[in-house]
Amino acid sequence: MAGPLGKDLLGLASLSAEQITLVLDTAVPFREISERAIKKVPTLRGATIVNLFFEASTRTRISFEFAEKRLSADTVNVAVAGSSVSKGETLVDTARNLEAMKIDMVVIRHGASGAAKFLAERIESNVINAGDGTNEHPTQGLLDLLTLRSRLGTLAGQRICIVGDVLHSRVARSNIWGLKKLGAEVAVCGPRSLLPNAIGEMGVTVFDRVEQAIEWADALNVLRLQLERMQAGYIPSLREYNRVFGVTRARLERSPRDLIILHPGPMNRGVEIDSDVADGPHSVILEQVTNGVAVRMAVLYLLAGGRPELAEAAKRGGA
Amino acid sequence: MAGPLGKDLLGLASLSAEQITLVLDTAVPFREISERAIKKVPTLRGATIVNLFFEASTRTRISFEFAEKRLSADTVNVAVAGSSVSKGETLVDTARNLEAMKIDMVVIRHGASGAAKFLAERIESNVINAGDGTNEHPTQGLLDLLTLRSRLGTLAGQRICIVGDVLHSRVARSNIWGLKKLGAEVAVCGPRSLLPNAIGEMGVTVFDRVEQAIEWADALNVLRLQLERMQAGYIPSLREYNRVFGVTRARLERSPRDLIILHPGPMNRGVEIDSDVADGPHSVILEQVTNGVAVRMAVLYLLAGGRPELAEAAKRGGA
Amino acid sequence: MAGPLGKDLLGLASLSAEQITLVLDTAVPFREISERAIKKVPTLRGATIVNLFFEASTRTRISFEFAEKRLSADTVNVAVAGSSVSKGETLVDTARNLEAMKIDMVVIRHGASGAAKFLAERIESNVINAGDGTNEHPTQGLLDLLTLRSRLGTLAGQRICIVGDVLHSRVARSNIWGLKKLGAEVAVCGPRSLLPNAIGEMGVTVFDRVEQAIEWADALNVLRLQLERMQAGYIPSLREYNRVFGVTRARLERSPRDLIILHPGPMNRGVEIDSDVADGPHSVILEQVTNGVAVRMAVLYLLAGGRPELAEAAKRGGA
Repeated sequence: MAGPLGKDLLGLASLSAEQITLVLDTAVPFREISERAIKKVPTLRGATIVNLFFEASTRTRISFEFAEKRLSADTVNVAVAGSSVSKGETLVDTARNLEAMKIDMVVIRHGASGAAKFLAERIESNVINAGDGTNEHPTQGLLDLLTLRSRLGTLAGQRICIVGDVLHSRVARSNIWGLKKLGAEVAVCGPRSLLPNAIGEMGVTVFDRVEQAIEWADALNVLRLQLERMQAGYIPSLREYNRVFGVTRARLERSPRDLIILHPGPMNRGVEIDSDVADGPHSVILEQVTNGVAVRMAVLYLLAGGRPELAEAAKRGGA
Repeated sequence: MAGPLGKDLLGLASLSAEQITLVLDTAVPFREISERAIKKVPTLRGATIVNLFFEASTRTRISFEFAEKRLSADTVNVAVAGSSVSKGETLVDTARNLEAMKIDMVVIRHGASGAAKFLAERIESNVINAGDGTNEHPTQGLLDLLTLRSRLGTLAGQRICIVGDVLHSRVARSNIWGLKKLGAEVAVCGPRSLLPNAIGEMGVTVFDRVEQAIEWADALNVLRLQLERMQAGYIPSLREYNRVFGVTRARLERSPRDLIILHPGPMNRGVEIDSDVADGPHSVILEQVTNGVAVRMAVLYLLAGGRPELAEAAKRGGA
Repeated sequence: MAGPLGKDLLGLASLSAEQITLVLDTAVPFREISERAIKKVPTLRGATIVNLFFEASTRTRISFEFAEKRLSADTVNVAVAGSSVSKGETLVDTARNLEAMKIDMVVIRHGASGAAKFLAERIESNVINAGDGTNEHPTQGLLDLLTLRSRLGTLAGQRICIVGDVLHSRVARSNIWGLKKLGAEVAVCGPRSLLPNAIGEMGVTVFDRVEQAIEWADALNVLRLQLERMQAGYIPSLREYNRVFGVTRARLERSPRDLIILHPGPMNRGVEIDSDVADGPHSVILEQVTNGVAVRMAVLYLLAGGRPELAEAAKRGGA
């Protein structure tokens, strides 16, 4: 018996608008738990969760770990050095072993697109994708949606522009799927070398200049520029990138509205975003982080809904 | 006052048949706890356990960590880079420091044979050997015994053959000790270069060809081949090893019985074991993993039996 | 509303004698908790604490982790590789992110003097300095004070000499501040190259020969000699250092009193301290480790005092 999200959370592409809305609605009361002195409910007491990270990630791992602990789950962290030759095999055997230890859920981050789905098809435990290659990072997408909805009231009809390296970004993809399902208008803006060729087919507007995006949008989601893109020849220099695509205070001042600025972090201050924007009144970057814990608690809670005894425990937890 | 196993679990060589049977009998109800939605009993609540790993080991560490958490202990992981010049001194000082922090138990993995014993003689906390050099890996031995006993009903009179690099294997040594104490007939099979010279004196039969082992045995315990053995000249090539000693479906079909296949993991598929055997009907490899958590819970529980207040708490836990 | 220590514990330089005494007095009953079979009180249940270590430190991190877990807090460890170019920025963004996750406390170790203060000024969570550059390591200073007070009854009028590399030692600095505030007479002893130029202005006596220190003192706090000091030319050789400044049994026998020997660990046996001293009757080195957990529990408890609901929970915990 699966919960309202099904067995796994692999991406936003496969969720309905109703399912996405359910996660956001569920996250709101969970956000309140983290404001208490005793930030803990017994919802997942006795459940065991593995955070299986094939890529290093301090911030996402910590956010999941706090979400799990605030739901009283027992968590184990597994950081896998990504050097094995036969990754596919290692992943299957690792997963089957974890499942044989009778774990309830796996949170997986992996460098290969599709790794979370691959895992989910092979084990009965719930699988949560914490980022797979350039495919999706659904909890990041959900926390961005929650942050925007909290500010804008609704996503329907709002104009959101994703700025930067859309080509390599699983954050961008999860955002595009989620925003469009909730009725937002979506645009992207970045160097052509860092936009997918088929971007037009995704039903998004394309801006070549960040000034156009600022004029059009209600919110900008500014992506991190991986600094190795410069070495790989995608952009001429960080300075040039900042000059053309950097989100600066001077540029924001030309917006006709109170633009909302999101960034998934960690930021390259002075490259894709200037410090006075990141720390300024338009920024909701820290709200994103707060919402990240709440959204992850909601996802864990809803996936556990497929397990009747856990759902029972959740009710007792008062969440 | 020591519990029924004494203060420490250092190896199976020093346990009686009755003590080994006690661990296996105790593990059976613990296996049931991991099947529940709330996989937790308060047995070791407030006890503090350090997992002190001088060698990297994801799977054994996780198995212990889940066993500890399901018994409600507080656990701390310490991964020690193995680069210190004066290992012996470091180990003593580390151990004394841990003990001064008033920990109850140490689970230690170390590259030197005898390290667990060395530690156990110097601190009052319970010490559990999670693998010391080429000496013993007793919880692996116990989980293999539990898995075989669950399948075969009894070990007495059963024929178990250990296949592979017996020379360097603490798993093999713990198996030989445990199996013989419980009345099994034990054989080994592998290249002569990877069998101990004095193997005959251990009271085991030696097979030079895996076909002979398959014809003789009720179960094969297939060891992982460390790939560096090839560079060191022990074997001519992985392919040659697979050709002569690999456990393949074609070979298993010539067995006169329903052979049981064990492997301690992680597997080199296509080297010591083929995938269709590892994932096939004869394999109990995932049962071994499940039993690993249960056996470790049983060992922790029984060692804590020497501490009356913990035993009292254990009773309340209903385990 | 801040507790009796204020919001943070950054160093002993900024604490009053009364505040230091309060920590020591509070630590005494906490020491008793670690002697119980169930080493756990619910004082900080539901509080979330991050151990943010920019420098590797097994022993301090474990001590804090046990202190946190014995107070029932939820803890997350973050080990940051120290390789980022713009450390300052990373630290701010990391800190703000942690705070946005609604954590209650951060325990920080960082290679830069002042890092803990920098962090404390930027976030509302309680900050505990677990060592910042060559500045302070206040919980180490407090555990040294508790150990000395337990042995000597009072610090007032006692003569304590710190032996070794005072120049680079945050342990030395926290000791000097704390000891002087509690009325002890303080001396230092070490090669002139490893003493601060302005050491005279700190109000401490300077000894050039360890024999003089031993004759004068009631207790020696022997610092670890970082072995890289030799390569950097501060001392001619480890052997020469041991010959002139090593604390040996032969030297201790010439003391007119029962000298107390402290060492913050890890020790270089045979360099700054000989094994028969480290393990001998004058050594209180393992008492220091035991007191370390108790002092850290006391600090966490007192800082939480600024949070009324936690203080309430603490009372119920009976600590």
